[in-house]
Amino acid sequence: MKELSIVSLPAASSVDRINFSASFEYNKIMKIINVIIVGLGNVGKAFLKLVHEKRGLCRKRYGLDIRFHSIFDLGGALVYPSLLRAGEILESLSFETSMSENSFWRSGFALVEALESIEPGVLVECTTSNIKDGEPGLTHIRQALERGWHVVTANKGPLVVDFRGLKGRAEQNQVALKFSGATAAALPTLDVALYSLAGADIFRVEGILNGTTNFILTKMKEGIGYEEALEEAQAKGIAESDPSLDVEGWDTASKILLIANAVLDKDFTLNDVKVEGITTIPPRLLRHGMEEGKALKLLGKIWKEGKKAHLEVALTVIDNSHPLYGVDGTNKGITFKTDSMDSITVTGGKSDPRGAGAALLKDIINIYNKT
Amino acid sequence: MKELSIVSLPAASSVDRINFSASFEYNKIMKIINVIIVGLGNVGKAFLKLVHEKRGLCRKRYGLDIRFHSIFDLGGALVYPSLLRAGEILESLSFETSMSENSFWRSGFALVEALESIEPGVLVECTTSNIKDGEPGLTHIRQALERGWHVVTANKGPLVVDFRGLKGRAEQNQVALKFSGATAAALPTLDVALYSLAGADIFRVEGILNGTTNFILTKMKEGIGYEEALEEAQAKGIAESDPSLDVEGWDTASKILLIANAVLDKDFTLNDVKVEGITTIPPRLLRHGMEEGKALKLLGKIWKEGKKAHLEVALTVIDNSHPLYGVDGTNKGITFKTDSMDSITVTGGKSDPRGAGAALLKDIINIYNKT
Repeated sequence: MKELSIVSLPAASSVDRINFSASFEYNKIMKIINVIIVGLGNVGKAFLKLVHEKRGLCRKRYGLDIRFHSIFDLGGALVYPSLLRAGEILESLSFETSMSENSFWRSGFALVEALESIEPGVLVECTTSNIKDGEPGLTHIRQALERGWHVVTANKGPLVVDFRGLKGRAEQNQVALKFSGATAAALPTLDVALYSLAGADIFRVEGILNGTTNFILTKMKEGIGYEEALEEAQAKGIAESDPSLDVEGWDTASKILLIANAVLDKDFTLNDVKVEGITTIPPRLLRHGMEEGKALKLLGKIWKEGKKAHLEVALTVIDNSHPLYGVDGTNKGITFKTDSMDSITVTGGKSDPRGAGAALLKDIINIYNKT
Repeated sequence: MKELSIVSLPAASSVDRINFSASFEYNKIMKIINVIIVGLGNVGKAFLKLVHEKRGLCRKRYGLDIRFHSIFDLGGALVYPSLLRAGEILESLSFETSMSENSFWRSGFALVEALESIEPGVLVECTTSNIKDGEPGLTHIRQALERGWHVVTANKGPLVVDFRGLKGRAEQNQVALKFSGATAAALPTLDVALYSLAGADIFRVEGILNGTTNFILTKMKEGIGYEEALEEAQAKGIAESDPSLDVEGWDTASKILLIANAVLDKDFTLNDVKVEGITTIPPRLLRHGMEEGKALKLLGKIWKEGKKAHLEVALTVIDNSHPLYGVDGTNKGITFKTDSMDSITVTGGKSDPRGAGAALLKDIINIYNKT
């Protein structure tokens, strides 16, 4: 293993003043943020790499110094003797084949123990999404919030299963629970709804929120059959080998559910969402969508009727005046209709692990960066 | 004048606890926000109406109770004996022909006196934009920031003239300076750049930021001449009787300047922006823009080359793969290209006084609403 210097790192709560006279920044207090990661898959790794890549920006622009206490995986954790920077961790990881062979690995180490051993910072939850019972992420997030840790997550499962309970725990403990990465990665959906449209009444939402299904529908518009389009998506790594969550509409349903609960302050469950997928497209819709100036899209929808809100995932033919008309391939987009700000549409954003990692980092920055 | 009850209003710093057991909100501390308005034109009035319309939402969702201390105009101010709600002010205004005839009018009353007489809250600056010397808004904003008041403004002038100085004053006094309303009203440009793309490196920005010029160019694409299109815009109240700031590109230049300074933390002035308008469109460009699948747009642009940033307002032919291609008529839109989140485009948003008022209210909410 390459030499890894872990000497005289600052204590968790220490603060140092830096002065960037050359830049526009005035004297800035540097804040050290303690971070614990749970789940080191593609998204967790991309997040670590991004924190390393952005260390200068985080310090200079936001006054944040992100340090890692531990990284949990099945059966244990990498626990560092002092808080490490992302670069130091990447260096220590790169020569290992599996986490349990790493010299910092502590088998059976419990997340609760880590959460209680240092000053609370941010738990980054990146375990695999499970929309059936939300586990194991649900337990991790509850444990963190109850101990005064902020939580940012790219994991839809816990929020699909118990949004109300988690939101309540966060409010009671006066910590943030942010999940940009769980609602379309780098495409800002929640941010725009909650921040950019603050004070507006959002009475309708329509979103293309799943890249796999949008890719397949785009290919079908070009005249390719469903099976062939799905195979192409799988070959390109866009669709998973078991694509059912995507093509049956549940991924879109989960995202629109999270957006509805956050935006409308509600407590909907997946049972409240009328869900349609793209596996059996009525021929009439397919023909209609092939017409000039038309497109067939799988839209996640929220709309209000009086005090009641409706949630739906539905195959919908839109025409070229619709703001999501040009959103093709793996691209995503969302439209909000409001009472005081008219209609706002956001499109684009990276859907890969790097995009999800960027969403996690953004949420951390926005927790601490208050002006 | 209709009966106006000004009895037993709470003191500026009082706090009361409310409990919305029926809604998703937990116990929320109600915060009273002291507001002073300067400039009661169309935007100021739309803002007051919106605060009245949204009083329930502000209390329930954000725990904010917005109260007004005074409203300044040329030569004096309406100064209320106790903090009034927007509805009470609208009621007291509706039977007056001019502000100086209102019973609350105090001729010669100075803004500084108002700022120093109560606990600091938010100064809402809505005087007419003046991009030559920034006055009178510049002085108002300086006075407020120096006395610990947050400032939200729809007025480009002061920020065009002295962004660096104002930003520095805000940071030194640890208050917020927000100006969503000055950078395309309800279209979220700055929010998305600073909040939704936090942590990303924005290396290119392209925006259709002026509704008047985009309306004229859209009409010209339909085959109407420039003069006729301008007259139609004026007849519809889209263009002002003196449209020069719009059609010569200075409005777009001011907005792209503000976005550049805020996003890149720079200190550019209008002299740094290469500006082109739509008054003399080269025939070649006009022809090119009329082609199938092409459109001629006036784009505000920022792009980075190494450490250097370039600012430009330029007539540009874009094709139908450009994310701003479908942004026609008075609509606006902006595209950000980033390193970690790919390309993000936002389109839509209301450009009328109500949209600008909604942007002011949003900025106030986001100053106080921290999670």
